[in-house]
Amino acid sequence: MSTEPEIPVNRAATLTDVAKLAGVSVATASKAINGRGDVRAATRQRVLEAAEMLSFAPNALARGLLGGRTGTVGLLTSDLEGRFSIPILMGAEDAFGAGQVSVFLCDARGDAIRERYHVRALLSRRVDGLIVVGSRTDPRPPLAGPIPVPVVYVYAPSANPDDISITVDNVGGGRLAIEHLLACGRRNIAHITGDAGYQAARDRADGAAAALADAGLAMLDGKPYYGSWDETWGRAAAHIVVERHPEVDAIFCGSDQIARGVLETLRDLGRDVPGSIAVAGFDNWEAVAAHSRPRLTSIDMNLEQLGAAAGRRLFAAIDGGDLPRSDQYPGRLVMRDSTAPAQ
Amino acid sequence: MSTEPEIPVNRAATLTDVAKLAGVSVATASKAINGRGDVRAATRQRVLEAAEMLSFAPNALARGLLGGRTGTVGLLTSDLEGRFSIPILMGAEDAFGAGQVSVFLCDARGDAIRERYHVRALLSRRVDGLIVVGSRTDPRPPLAGPIPVPVVYVYAPSANPDDISITVDNVGGGRLAIEHLLACGRRNIAHITGDAGYQAARDRADGAAAALADAGLAMLDGKPYYGSWDETWGRAAAHIVVERHPEVDAIFCGSDQIARGVLETLRDLGRDVPGSIAVAGFDNWEAVAAHSRPRLTSIDMNLEQLGAAAGRRLFAAIDGGDLPRSDQYPGRLVMRDSTAPAQ
Repeated sequence: MSTEPEIPVNRAATLTDVAKLAGVSVATASKAINGRGDVRAATRQRVLEAAEMLSFAPNALARGLLGGRTGTVGLLTSDLEGRFSIPILMGAEDAFGAGQVSVFLCDARGDAIRERYHVRALLSRRVDGLIVVGSRTDPRPPLAGPIPVPVVYVYAPSANPDDISITVDNVGGGRLAIEHLLACGRRNIAHITGDAGYQAARDRADGAAAALADAGLAMLDGKPYYGSWDETWGRAAAHIVVERHPEVDAIFCGSDQIARGVLETLRDLGRDVPGSIAVAGFDNWEAVAAHSRPRLTSIDMNLEQLGAAAGRRLFAAIDGGDLPRSDQYPGRLVMRDSTAPAQ
Repeated sequence: MSTEPEIPVNRAATLTDVAKLAGVSVATASKAINGRGDVRAATRQRVLEAAEMLSFAPNALARGLLGGRTGTVGLLTSDLEGRFSIPILMGAEDAFGAGQVSVFLCDARGDAIRERYHVRALLSRRVDGLIVVGSRTDPRPPLAGPIPVPVVYVYAPSANPDDISITVDNVGGGRLAIEHLLACGRRNIAHITGDAGYQAARDRADGAAAALADAGLAMLDGKPYYGSWDETWGRAAAHIVVERHPEVDAIFCGSDQIARGVLETLRDLGRDVPGSIAVAGFDNWEAVAAHSRPRLTSIDMNLEQLGAAAGRRLFAAIDGGDLPRSDQYPGRLVMRDSTAPAQ
């Protein structure tokens, strides 16, 4: 069976063109390009150079139909505008290896109907597997309908525990932040965070509370200050904390944006950071953390690693390996200037 | 010729499965799904419901090989981590129509070799066209080698004027900002911006200077304060401007991050914004502009529209229409609280 389908002449160089340019037979050109058969090194080199010059690429599409695999993967996100999908996507791309597997990207924009539509389109393209990236860490409903290829859920786990889900350990992240503040000698620690409707807010708070309990402590007020994920809330909440608890010597924030607002209020109030009050954020969003005053210590959830793990897991699932269903990945502390031992 | 290739049974529902579930013949199911022939409405409905239940999707891959088009497009970016590619990508996806065309996303990460590799892979997948998104507005070298499909360059134009390039009008954007500040009654206007090595910095400055010249004015110091695209530079430059020019009544900034730093310094110095000094940014980056104190007036370059325009242009090029090679898209002013008539 020929690997050359009928592609219009004005659309792409054919193997015949390559053979002609290299001055060899089509059979030899084919062998050289596919690495099969007995071709002299110099001839092979000449054929590959001709292929390069003509931007010739073996027809992966036709090969896919013949081989039963297309070498394509669908990446379905709900959060292209957010900051979480992009590093995950880059990590997945790294895992796939440039050119080895091609990635169809679809943005469902949080709309279930749009998602179904995209999934149908991807299945009609015979993708070998799907990666589904959520915009928050709350469990999401599994993809609707029978999906005939492996699916890996990232960041937002599937609500079905039988599905493969790769998530971040937000409880551990909250614990990391508090352990660092404790190591800096802080004891009167408040936690200002985002919307309590988010699993991420609750998990980070749980981790923080557990680390404090291990040290025989509790967060100021005995619970987090829940609000919204932005600077405006950070500014307002910092006022409340300082007024209610003049003894506060550290504030752990559920996001870098909240921390940014907290830093501004502390500056307005003339409180020294980190001398008087240490501040830690979450997300390690470079644009925010690296340019605040002082520069912000934060928890990085290693989202590129998460994406790479999802890519590898999907490969393994396509190959039919027996794997643990789900996995949680830890974060790491990135220390900057907003935390230090108490003076 | 059958539209049903030999797809392994465990991978996807076939037309036969759909026909069985709907209780019709395969021929009838085929007609119902393809919208051909004479099928009663109720029967068609039953078939479509069966197809939906089984996640059946006509084999686009096989159709593509037969029809000479694959309905796929490659989107090659160099800036997934940046903020500019994502809205462009979303706009392009909108133009393609969910499910009509599928988009292969590749991130070359600013590396020419990686880019070549991706292009080869995309061509081997027989994409119908390519969209190349740059990370800055400076002209970039065209894709290497003969590319047998239409290519549209977005944001960063191709250095070859014969290529199709869709760009933003940064000169016009600079002009918009200054005209707004002039309308607010400001006359002593400074321009603090990013790296002069960026075309975007020079274009915005040129537009600003032209608008000032039209009003018989010049920017303070007669030229922009070039630096870097971050808050740290914004803070430092604002100190310089206020010291050298106590009469300054407006500062136009080349990015929202720079403007954010400027706002902080003015706050530190006790200068009232916008009462004493109006401040305008550029990019309309919501996370920065909507939560600064005061909230920041900014220029929005309508990047989603740019992406949609690129998608439409690529379609037209695939269809062989005769089109203008290049196009520039204007921005718009988004007014918030940092600008107002002088008091």
